[in-house]
Order: sequence, then structure tokens, then C-alpha cells
Amino acid sequence: MAQDTDDGFYMRRCVELAWKAIGCTSPNPMVGCVIVKDGKIVGEGFHPKAGQPHAEVFALRDAGDLAENATAYVSLEPCNHYGRTPPCTEALIKAKVKKVVVGMVDPNPIVASKGVDKLRDAGIDVSVGVEEELCKRLNEAYIHQMLTGNPFLTLRYSLSVNGNVLDQLGKGAKEPGGYYSQLLQEYDAVILSPTLLNDKFSILASQEPGAKQPLWILTARTSHPPIKIPGLSTEETAKMIIFTDKNMDVQQETVLQGIEMVVLDQINLKAILEYCKCQGFCSVLLDVRGNFGDIEELLKEGIEQNLLRKIVVEVLPLWHGSNGENLLVAINSIDKRLKIKNLQSRTSNENVVLEAYL
Amino acid sequence: MAQDTDDGFYMRRCVELAWKAIGCTSPNPMVGCVIVKDGKIVGEGFHPKAGQPHAEVFALRDAGDLAENATAYVSLEPCNHYGRTPPCTEALIKAKVKKVVVGMVDPNPIVASKGVDKLRDAGIDVSVGVEEELCKRLNEAYIHQMLTGNPFLTLRYSLSVNGNVLDQLGKGAKEPGGYYSQLLQEYDAVILSPTLLNDKFSILASQEPGAKQPLWILTARTSHPPIKIPGLSTEETAKMIIFTDKNMDVQQETVLQGIEMVVLDQINLKAILEYCKCQGFCSVLLDVRGNFGDIEELLKEGIEQNLLRKIVVEVLPLWHGSNGENLLVAINSIDKRLKIKNLQSRTSNENVVLEAYL
Repeated sequence: MAQDTDDGFYMRRCVELAWKAIGCTSPNPMVGCVIVKDGKIVGEGFHPKAGQPHAEVFALRDAGDLAENATAYVSLEPCNHYGRTPPCTEALIKAKVKKVVVGMVDPNPIVASKGVDKLRDAGIDVSVGVEEELCKRLNEAYIHQMLTGNPFLTLRYSLSVNGNVLDQLGKGAKEPGGYYSQLLQEYDAVILSPTLLNDKFSILASQEPGAKQPLWILTARTSHPPIKIPGLSTEETAKMIIFTDKNMDVQQETVLQGIEMVVLDQINLKAILEYCKCQGFCSVLLDVRGNFGDIEELLKEGIEQNLLRKIVVEVLPLWHGSNGENLLVAINSIDKRLKIKNLQSRTSNENVVLEAYL
Repeated sequence: MAQDTDDGFYMRRCVELAWKAIGCTSPNPMVGCVIVKDGKIVGEGFHPKAGQPHAEVFALRDAGDLAENATAYVSLEPCNHYGRTPPCTEALIKAKVKKVVVGMVDPNPIVASKGVDKLRDAGIDVSVGVEEELCKRLNEAYIHQMLTGNPFLTLRYSLSVNGNVLDQLGKGAKEPGGYYSQLLQEYDAVILSPTLLNDKFSILASQEPGAKQPLWILTARTSHPPIKIPGLSTEETAKMIIFTDKNMDVQQETVLQGIEMVVLDQINLKAILEYCKCQGFCSVLLDVRGNFGDIEELLKEGIEQNLLRKIVVEVLPLWHGSNGENLLVAINSIDKRLKIKNLQSRTSNENVVLEAYL
């Protein structure tokens, strides 16, 4: 087998390992590491959680003495600075690895390539950019936030095969392993129409078991009907926040439930994203269902102000007739502004999930 | 490698070979055959064209004496009747193959399993149903026509990612190897809105080089503006037919161009399909573009009368704003009638192609 193919194989394994910590590493990136000696994997590791050791440390521990003269594969450039843990470059040098293969350099401009330089200075052979696209996809929100300072905003909705926006998610989407429950793990916060709560929407039912819970963001405008929130558990209300404008009369029961309220002069997407930024969130999901309700204005702003970075569209095996109106299409005269790149698809249960970037 | 896996591998090769004759075998099915001896392919063949020898004959010729005691893989049950060519069962028996692996039995109820029986009677080991779904997909139109007597009707359209029906095809769709030009090869006839002809739509530009040309079906109703057909080549007009209602005043130039005209009491999809059936067509494509024009009524009939068997949807990487109307959605109150199965996706150039069955 060609060396190139091997490198790709081991790097894909790094990425696979890294994904195991989905939803747990924020604000850190997900990273995986594999130690290979004589064509055999002798150590594996991933970064499980902010504050815990990095992927390289776990993989080197796993390899023990076998790390000497081995090749280390790591999906992201090893860090070269003291944070909550000592630099990984030192650990690799100390373990006497012969070569380090790096998926992508650190997107943080302050530290980019410094880890690589340090390893090379220590006489270690370093190659960079193996399965780079895959490594970038792994931490797309982290990279975006690192480069721009802003959270990565993704729009999600469901369509019927004839192009109608649907209220419902596809079969299996909210089950463990379903695309929607997996998506929730990727995002730090989810903006949702409060009208969904009227339908006894259970937030926790959409979560992977044991997974990190995103913050659920609801909006309540004076101009819209008041929010009615059905019986929610304390666990649910603790992960919920309501943005209101100052004249909003939120129902007493909501306040009693202890949901955090943020009062803004005017509710808009920029203000919500600013809040998320201050919370240190890397990623925000704008989750749109058929009856847009309060979300419509946020979506319009997102499109017009070019705030969206990614679109996730679920296509359901339904032919859905209605009054002919598709609210996503009705947000008009803006088609020229959205440049859509890298449209990809995959099947998920009986549905198809499309992903594209803006 | 397990025997099962091998069988699947060789059958997939049969299907691959069969596809080489796409658009050339109608009204016959596409069939591929592979002869395997001691784990090696010693002969390959496919049915190239109605009237020419079947796949088995080509594969046996290719294998020569090596066919003795070999295993023959064939995507469709070998025929056991004298048609334009002698039965393939005889050829296989004469070549002394030891085993025959069949993808699927003949869908023609009159001959189904007779080929298998004949081979077994001759002492040949026969197994049936390897990669059956793939083999069925290969000849889905043929099978449908064989079982129902009617042509297989497929609806095609393009959507933007936000669910709007588009006028245009995706980039590369009409190029050689593009999904649209490949689709044209699969179908015997294509129903198209005549409004497209006004835009200097070139029919031949959408064809695979050297491929079979489908019959292009246009409709012209009294209630719609008259068809204007730009300068078409003789080659184009020869593969074109116009259905009109009896009061239609088709422009003189059209008649002069020598395009065949069929006058009906009333233009409807059933009447068009009946015509296609009489022509011996296996498959018809209803090609819908953004400005539906005359097609809208046919589409509505197709949905309401449950005449559609398959949907092919191309999703383009565009966000397309408009007046909010999606004509596919506007055909309403019919959503309960369409049961959509087996939704699948694949990327095609920068677009995604969805396929589903009804």
C-alpha cells in the first residue's frame, strides 16, 4: 500500500476518535491521535473534555515505550503553549517519536505553525495537511469562531420532496444516532420557535443519551401571541433562555418556572449572536419548522445580513400539498446574496440530509 | 472471501456490463453475464440491442472452452423460448457450465422460472436472487411494463435548496455523463413543456453522444398560447411529436417543419400514455421545469390519478427567492395519495440527485 494511502487511513482514524467527544470539548476543538509503529496502531487517544489532557497525551500513554521511533498522527497541530495542560509538543518530543503527521495547522493565528516548528526544531520529521478537509469539517465551528470571533451559525429545516417546508422532523431523526440528535450535540445553542412548545414539544427527547445539552433559545415579541410553556422539568428549564423585547408580557407561569429571561430593546439575530458570543459559544443552530412564527424575522435577518455559514436540510419521503406558499421561498429578492458551496447528501433512516456552506 | 460476497461481486459486474447498453435494448431488458472459473472471470458479455444475441451468448463465446465446469452469473433469468434468437438455456447446457447464478427471475409471468427449471432439469446447480434489488433497478421500466402492460412514468424536476422549483437544470446535468443526459437514455419518451422551445432549447444538446434519442412529446392546447418552434434540425423534428386538441391552431411553420401531429379530443396524460403504450414504449419521463405552462395539468392528473411510479429530483446549490409560490406544492389536497418509498440520494457534479418510488 502506498504511504499516502496509509497516512489517509490513520488520519481518518484520528478523526473518528475525535468525534467520540462530540459536544464535550467546547470551547476546545475535537482532536484525535494515533501512534503507528511498523504499520501497526500501538496507541490511540482523543481529547475528551475541556480541562482534560489532549489527544496526544492519551495516545502516547496508550503506546507506552512503543512510541519511541513511531509515527504520531494527529488531526490538529499539537499545541505549543501552556494552557490548562502542558504543551503536547513536549510530550511528543519526550516520547521520542520519529515522525508527526498533522491533519491541519492550528487555526488560531497566534499559535499557528508554532507547534510544527517546535517539533521540527527537535529533529522530528513533520508533514502537514493529510485529510485536511475532513479535519476542518470536524471543527468547523471552532475554526470559524477562532478566525472571526463570532459563533458559527447554521440554518436547519425539513422539506418534502416537492419542496414544501415541513413542521415535523423525519422518522428516526430524534432517536439516538439520528441526524437531529447528533446535530444537537454539535451545537452550543439552538434557536427555536416558541410556537413549538405549545405542541408539547419535548426538548430532552431530542438528545443523545448522556450527551451535552445545548442551550435552547426562545424569543417572545410583543407583537406575537404570548408564550405558553407546558410542564417542563427543572432540567429542561435550566437549559432554556427566553429573549423578550421590553414591552413583552410573559406569562406568569414562565417566570415562576425559573427560566432565564433576557430583555432586549429589540429582538434580532445579531443581538442573540452577540449574547452567544459573550457566553463563549462556538456554534448556534437556527432551527426552523413549518409554522415559522417568531423565527421568520430572525431567518430573514440571517439571510439578508449574511449571518449564515451552513445549511442543513432534511428531505422527507413525503409529497406535501398546501396553499402553495413556502416561507423559505417567500423571503425574496435575496437569492443573489447567498452563494452556496459544497452541497453534499447522505441518507439517514428513510430521509436524506443535505449539507451546504455559505 | 465468503462465497456470498463473491456472488455479489460477480453479479454487480453483470449489472455494470448490462448498463453499457443503456437506451439500446428496448423493448428488451438490459442483461449482463459473467463466466467465472477457479475464482477468475473467463468470459463477459451483455445484450447490446434488440435482435442481437443475448448476454449469455457473448459471455460463453468469450470464455470458449473454459466455460466447461465454470459458473455463469447472469443478471436476469436465461430465456427458455425461441424469440429472435435461440434460448440461452440451451447455450448454457451445451457449454457444460456447472452452476448458474441468477440475479432475478424473468418478470414475464409466462416464462418466469421456466429457464431456471430447464437448467436444473439438465443437472445444473442454479441459485436465484443475488443482488436482486440492483438487478430490478436495472430494468425497472421493463419489469413494470411486463407486469402491468403500461409504460413506467417518472416525474423529474429541479429544486433550489430552499424548495423552489427551478427553470434550469444543474451545471453539468446536460453534459455527457451528466445525470440528465443519462436519464434521457433510460427513457423511450420525454414529455416536455413547449414553452421551453421558445427559449431556444436544444433537444439534441442534452443527449449522450451516439446515444439513442427518446421521442420528445409536446402538447398544444387551444387554451394556451400557440407553440413557437425555433429552427430545428430534421434530426430533431423526426424525434418530436405534438399532441393537440382538435381546435388548436398550430402555427403553419410547425406543420411545414414536418413534425408529427396527433389530434386528440382532449389532451390528457392517460391519452399520451396510451399512445406510448401502443408504440411499445417501456418508459416515459415527465420533465417539469419552473414555468410549468401546459405541463401543469398533466402533472396534476399524474398525481391525482396515481400514474407516477418514480420521482427524480435534482437539488441545485442555489437559494432562490420568488413570489413564494411553488407550483408543485400548490397542487394540493393530494398529499395523502402519494406514498413515497426508498428515497435515495447521490451527488452529481455540484448538485444532488434524489430518487424515490411511488
